[in-house]
Amino acid sequence: MSSSINQPGENQAWLDAVKWNSDGLVPVITQDFETGTVLTQAWMSREALSLTQEEARAVYWSRSRQKLWRKGEESGHQQIIKEILLDCDSDALLIRVEQIGGIACHTGRVRCFYRRLENGQWVTSDPVIKDPEKIYKK
Amino acid sequence: MSSSINQPGENQAWLDAVKWNSDGLVPVITQDFETGTVLTQAWMSREALSLTQEEARAVYWSRSRQKLWRKGEESGHQQIIKEILLDCDSDALLIRVEQIGGIACHTGRVRCFYRRLENGQWVTSDPVIKDPEKIYKK
Repeated sequence: MSSSINQPGENQAWLDAVKWNSDGLVPVITQDFETGTVLTQAWMSREALSLTQEEARAVYWSRSRQKLWRKGEESGHQQIIKEILLDCDSDALLIRVEQIGGIACHTGRVRCFYRRLENGQWVTSDPVIKDPEKIYKK
Repeated sequence: MSSSINQPGENQAWLDAVKWNSDGLVPVITQDFETGTVLTQAWMSREALSLTQEEARAVYWSRSRQKLWRKGEESGHQQIIKEILLDCDSDALLIRVEQIGGIACHTGRVRCFYRRLENGQWVTSDPVIKDPEKIYKK
């Protein structure tokens, strides 16, 4: 499956259309399909994007771990793909998803953007929905 | 004004909290405050973010032109800041804005994410609201 991803071919033209950066990655914005909430910002490699389309769930490239990251593989908080969009410069993606469990952030919050700038300070604006220790407990 | 931005100081702690990448930039997601539409993905330098806060309108760093880019400086399509949010890893920003003129994209569309993946092809899903030649005509 993944061995065919980097082969040029008729069916891969949509992957060729993406402008990958010097690390072979593209920034991805993940938005809740129903609420419109911007959940997170992550990165995809060519293989990650191809798998995202194939499996209809978000597969990112983890820059910290330097490997494919099937969102929800540990937490169960998978992101089911509803729509994949490309921007005008072909260098950013927007995926609109169904967020399983209603929690996108590893801190146990709905979204990763939970700090708001207020009077020159980052103030935590969103509550923790579920204790991360319970999310990641095996 | 901008000369003070790179000086360490009590009031700049919120800028220090952002994890700037090796180019000194951070990815920024821009969302329409009223509709929730994700308009664009762009980049900010430390100075751009400081000016964005100061002027309450989106100021980006243009990677192609390698200079500060006051969104709307030519088109008039400014983005008025309603909210600035930072993510859990401190390496991405979400700004929620009022989009002046209702057009964020240089192609004359509401948003830059106007191509949707359908059956292995990028299909243009959004109409042009205003001819770009009329937008950028002096």
